[in-house]
Amino acid sequence: MIKAGIVGGTGYTGVELLRLLAGHPAVDLAVITSRGEKGARVSELFPNLRGRVDLRFVEPDDAVLKGCDVVFFATPNGTAMKSAPTLLKAGARIIDLAADFRLRRVEDWEQWYGMPHACAELLAEAVYGLPEVNREAIRCARLVANPGCYPTAVQLGFLPLLEAGVVDPQSLIADAKSGVSGAGRKAEVGILLCEAGDNFKAYNVPAHRHWPEIRQGLAAVAGGAVDLVFVPHLTPMIRGIHATLYATLTESGADLQALFEQRYANEPFVDVLPPKSHPETRSVRGANQCRLAMHRPRNGKTVVVLSVIDNLVKGAAGQAVQNMNLMFGLPETAGLEQIALLP
Amino acid sequence: MIKAGIVGGTGYTGVELLRLLAGHPAVDLAVITSRGEKGARVSELFPNLRGRVDLRFVEPDDAVLKGCDVVFFATPNGTAMKSAPTLLKAGARIIDLAADFRLRRVEDWEQWYGMPHACAELLAEAVYGLPEVNREAIRCARLVANPGCYPTAVQLGFLPLLEAGVVDPQSLIADAKSGVSGAGRKAEVGILLCEAGDNFKAYNVPAHRHWPEIRQGLAAVAGGAVDLVFVPHLTPMIRGIHATLYATLTESGADLQALFEQRYANEPFVDVLPPKSHPETRSVRGANQCRLAMHRPRNGKTVVVLSVIDNLVKGAAGQAVQNMNLMFGLPETAGLEQIALLP
Amino acid sequence: MIKAGIVGGTGYTGVELLRLLAGHPAVDLAVITSRGEKGARVSELFPNLRGRVDLRFVEPDDAVLKGCDVVFFATPNGTAMKSAPTLLKAGARIIDLAADFRLRRVEDWEQWYGMPHACAELLAEAVYGLPEVNREAIRCARLVANPGCYPTAVQLGFLPLLEAGVVDPQSLIADAKSGVSGAGRKAEVGILLCEAGDNFKAYNVPAHRHWPEIRQGLAAVAGGAVDLVFVPHLTPMIRGIHATLYATLTESGADLQALFEQRYANEPFVDVLPPKSHPETRSVRGANQCRLAMHRPRNGKTVVVLSVIDNLVKGAAGQAVQNMNLMFGLPETAGLEQIALLP
Amino acid sequence: MIKAGIVGGTGYTGVELLRLLAGHPAVDLAVITSRGEKGARVSELFPNLRGRVDLRFVEPDDAVLKGCDVVFFATPNGTAMKSAPTLLKAGARIIDLAADFRLRRVEDWEQWYGMPHACAELLAEAVYGLPEVNREAIRCARLVANPGCYPTAVQLGFLPLLEAGVVDPQSLIADAKSGVSGAGRKAEVGILLCEAGDNFKAYNVPAHRHWPEIRQGLAAVAGGAVDLVFVPHLTPMIRGIHATLYATLTESGADLQALFEQRYANEPFVDVLPPKSHPETRSVRGANQCRLAMHRPRNGKTVVVLSVIDNLVKGAAGQAVQNMNLMFGLPETAGLEQIALLP
Repeated sequence: MIKAGIVGGTGYTGVELLRLLAGHPAVDLAVITSRGEKGARVSELFPNLRGRVDLRFVEPDDAVLKGCDVVFFATPNGTAMKSAPTLLKAGARIIDLAADFRLRRVEDWEQWYGMPHACAELLAEAVYGLPEVNREAIRCARLVANPGCYPTAVQLGFLPLLEAGVVDPQSLIADAKSGVSGAGRKAEVGILLCEAGDNFKAYNVPAHRHWPEIRQGLAAVAGGAVDLVFVPHLTPMIRGIHATLYATLTESGADLQALFEQRYANEPFVDVLPPKSHPETRSVRGANQCRLAMHRPRNGKTVVVLSVIDNLVKGAAGQAVQNMNLMFGLPETAGLEQIALLP
Repeated sequence: MIKAGIVGGTGYTGVELLRLLAGHPAVDLAVITSRGEKGARVSELFPNLRGRVDLRFVEPDDAVLKGCDVVFFATPNGTAMKSAPTLLKAGARIIDLAADFRLRRVEDWEQWYGMPHACAELLAEAVYGLPEVNREAIRCARLVANPGCYPTAVQLGFLPLLEAGVVDPQSLIADAKSGVSGAGRKAEVGILLCEAGDNFKAYNVPAHRHWPEIRQGLAAVAGGAVDLVFVPHLTPMIRGIHATLYATLTESGADLQALFEQRYANEPFVDVLPPKSHPETRSVRGANQCRLAMHRPRNGKTVVVLSVIDNLVKGAAGQAVQNMNLMFGLPETAGLEQIALLP
Repeated sequence: MIKAGIVGGTGYTGVELLRLLAGHPAVDLAVITSRGEKGARVSELFPNLRGRVDLRFVEPDDAVLKGCDVVFFATPNGTAMKSAPTLLKAGARIIDLAADFRLRRVEDWEQWYGMPHACAELLAEAVYGLPEVNREAIRCARLVANPGCYPTAVQLGFLPLLEAGVVDPQSLIADAKSGVSGAGRKAEVGILLCEAGDNFKAYNVPAHRHWPEIRQGLAAVAGGAVDLVFVPHLTPMIRGIHATLYATLTESGADLQALFEQRYANEPFVDVLPPKSHPETRSVRGANQCRLAMHRPRNGKTVVVLSVIDNLVKGAAGQAVQNMNLMFGLPETAGLEQIALLP
Repeated sequence: MIKAGIVGGTGYTGVELLRLLAGHPAVDLAVITSRGEKGARVSELFPNLRGRVDLRFVEPDDAVLKGCDVVFFATPNGTAMKSAPTLLKAGARIIDLAADFRLRRVEDWEQWYGMPHACAELLAEAVYGLPEVNREAIRCARLVANPGCYPTAVQLGFLPLLEAGVVDPQSLIADAKSGVSGAGRKAEVGILLCEAGDNFKAYNVPAHRHWPEIRQGLAAVAGGAVDLVFVPHLTPMIRGIHATLYATLTESGADLQALFEQRYANEPFVDVLPPKSHPETRSVRGANQCRLAMHRPRNGKTVVVLSVIDNLVKGAAGQAVQNMNLMFGLPETAGLEQIALLP
């Protein structure tokens, strides 16, 4: 059994990790930390876990985490980077669900996250945990930067097009819509039911931290800089991201359906729908799945890709478990076979 | 492996049965019927099942169902009773998720359901599938009447009080609130998002078909007639029932907390919360669980019981699988260990 | 024109007051205060008011409010009582939308609100602003205690029964369900969309501050103490309260429909529905209305009253404007003729 | 007083027209027709109108409508065109909220709406009722084609850019999100609360009937054909459209904020927000308003316009009343001064 620890398990990615790891056949959930909830039973905070998770939150402390085989950070940005060197030295492997190791250039990171990086030397070693791109590197990684939710949905949708070189990399638009759980479990007015409910809005159009992350990933596969407009929106639901992606075709004869089907033929967690489909976010609710569909309206110059994930699963905790499975030589789907809850 | 068939799998209890049976370790999902969707892939109708259920809907036909060990009816009322005799004769066991076999007296059934009963002779044999009351009878049953959703939530809340004789059986009030999936997957104006969303109302206060079912069950444990006022409401959410139950205490010294904890100590799917708790429907979303809490406001004469279930799971498909497990000698929890999806 | 001031206009009752007063034909909205938002335009915080309300929030300060004819307090409990004596002396009339003047006995108030009362001497003068009970007293009042949202819905439902003496005052149960806006516009985890959405729960069953307020009001009309069980619930919608009321009939021959219709025949804001109706909260969304329906299931001993209001209108800001209209000799319906928004 | 009739008042645009006309100072609501609800009180179907609209539905019949000064058609497509010639001859003026007169070329109409047009000769006379473009023509019109909801939101957002010639008309993308009321009040599975709730999806990406309508309008102002990709989505809320519009700038020095502010300076129902704003759909809920904001991410080549309306008001019934006001020489804002309901 893999001995797993979770740092900062009081948010939505934390409780989702707990749900997945509690049912994982090869994991022993050993430690969960929280400064604020120290001493409380996990199941008091999250009653869905009553009878299934018997842990109490403990004070965050590297000592108690050192005995873990893997430590998940479900913390605010800027936390994992402080503990990573110590834990790695102690032999633990790390999966950071926050953003500390997602950008390769330390200048970019410090600009976008507004603080100095505590262990920039690890940025080169960290592996960006998108298995559909970096599977082999993840297997050997000590330190995995689990991708953001928007970046997962957007990259999986653009990848086949850029890899095949059939779209202009200067023409990318990602119009993305997220359920409110993407904003976390924080006491903020803007995500109250009475503010975000029965309402729709864009936010952070001038600049969103997922923009450089997406751009970095797309540039890597495009083999050069890409021009990306990224507009995130808040939609009045709990879970789910729907990314609507636009790009200008450079090869008007490309068979887009075949291209996507071949690219993802062996991917357990990416599902290419039949032609003319419209994936629904609820079709992946609670499941580690990305579902994709492609359109070319009026046979014109623009390809439209529709990409849905559950932001807390394939966009966070589920992908983290997928990465753990790869890192520890387990079947990639272990503990990730939940069927989406519909309705 | 148990060979299972589903009749009428296009509604919400149908897709939920499919979700649960597709992940059940001892079940081979062999047949699913639907007149309207004949020939279609199950996963076209319910894309959450893509890659997990490879069946197509077939014409309802007793012949194809006869080879099944168990047949689930997820049909409108009045359907199962037409096929039951034939299938039972062929050796299949039946779990009816509709109401055909829930009431013991044929006069009651015909009055409340407005049609003649097609096989009244089976009413005496049918076992009411509430395992917390009828576990032993269910094990041997050929024909199980799976309880309604409201009846499950209400009976589990009142049972310990009536069994212990600590409340006046003439004083029962059940104020119940259901998510909209309880109304089924039917093209009706009243359950449109724009009608039922952002709205709350009572319905069927003069008479609801679950009233005689609940009363029959409570009378059996009370050992005599009960007086029950039952007021159902529609609440703007998808899954979940919250029953708020009121009764007048006859024994003012009763330790209600202990009473409930002892009654359900060995029940895998009934969870008594600590004193002063308020169970949330989301704590059982997608899980085969009932969670209960008891209150006695201002130490007065009225006990208040709060009872939550997922109407599609413990209130329908999950309880049906629980009954199947009992009928076939499987561990009662087999295939039912999903943790509730929160948030 | 009546010169009106609002203290604490950044919550939901505040913005609702602004909406109603901005369209009121006889009101000049002169001042709005907020410590936190001092200097900001009201329409920056509440963009629905762009082009309609041109005020900026100013520092709360009795001096600036003294010139007002009427001052509304849309503040937390314990605020209005500090300013009331000064403002009254200056000749302003006060309508407190919080609870400072709702309970007549200072001991009760201090027990339930957990602080000493700053001007207990005004409790006797304050008029409880439920026009359907206290219309004449309100006309002359200098200081009106605007009722709570639950108390409005519950009292209007029970009043005819208690006034007519047809139910046992020791048998009252109020099972009430509120939209989330009743909890206010506060940064709290429990009312986030991801916590309160797609979820239903009871809360504060042991004790809720509206219990003594309701009991006081009902006792006054019953002419003696009443026994009331009050169970509030949170339902996943923004606006609306649905109270389901139960009482034991003492006069089995009472014509309940006629009783309610006669009691409210001349009330502009109470609407008794035809027999067998089920009022919906959305039928009063945004409107200063209470809609009522009565049932007597199976012609038994229990009467069930269904009562709906918009908690922010008839349960708060609308009722406050109704009180202002009475206090200043305006038509009672002035500025309150909005039709509910459906869907 | 203007004598107004409504044909087909049982849908959401119908009830919204009723709400607005019932409060309109210059309108006498004389007739409302419905084949299905003939004889029923309007307020039985829509209880929000109790006490405010005392009409009963009558059989659709041109005779009864001939006496009206204006007839609104809130009917399915293909209805108004059958009655229009007769009613116009009788001297009534017509506002069609459906699509019968929106496309100028009969071939286009017949292709997109799949039926022969019953009075193609009127297409040339019909005025497209977008007051911000066609105000003067509307004043004199006998027959107004009220724009679709998406076309209103999208055209108002693109107009200033195309009129000023600062974007490439071959680069237009409209990513639009609609609340579910846009699909109407029809008994269809896809818009049930349990299907459309807590879910997000695109639909009709290959072809949507609003595409030719938008394109026709934009081409008119652009002075030539435009290339438009239009992707509609369904978002889990009742009212509201949010259009996110993308276009490639051809004049990199354009002051977009000034451009929009000047274009709409005198428009009572178009509100240009300050720079860096993100309009919310709830800021226009129930109000006849369009709110707009412009962005140019990273100062790049793409302009992003955010446009919100209430699909039932500025996108349907409110715009119809605005057109009526123009046609009858009333103040354009008469009866349209409702402030949006927030929260």
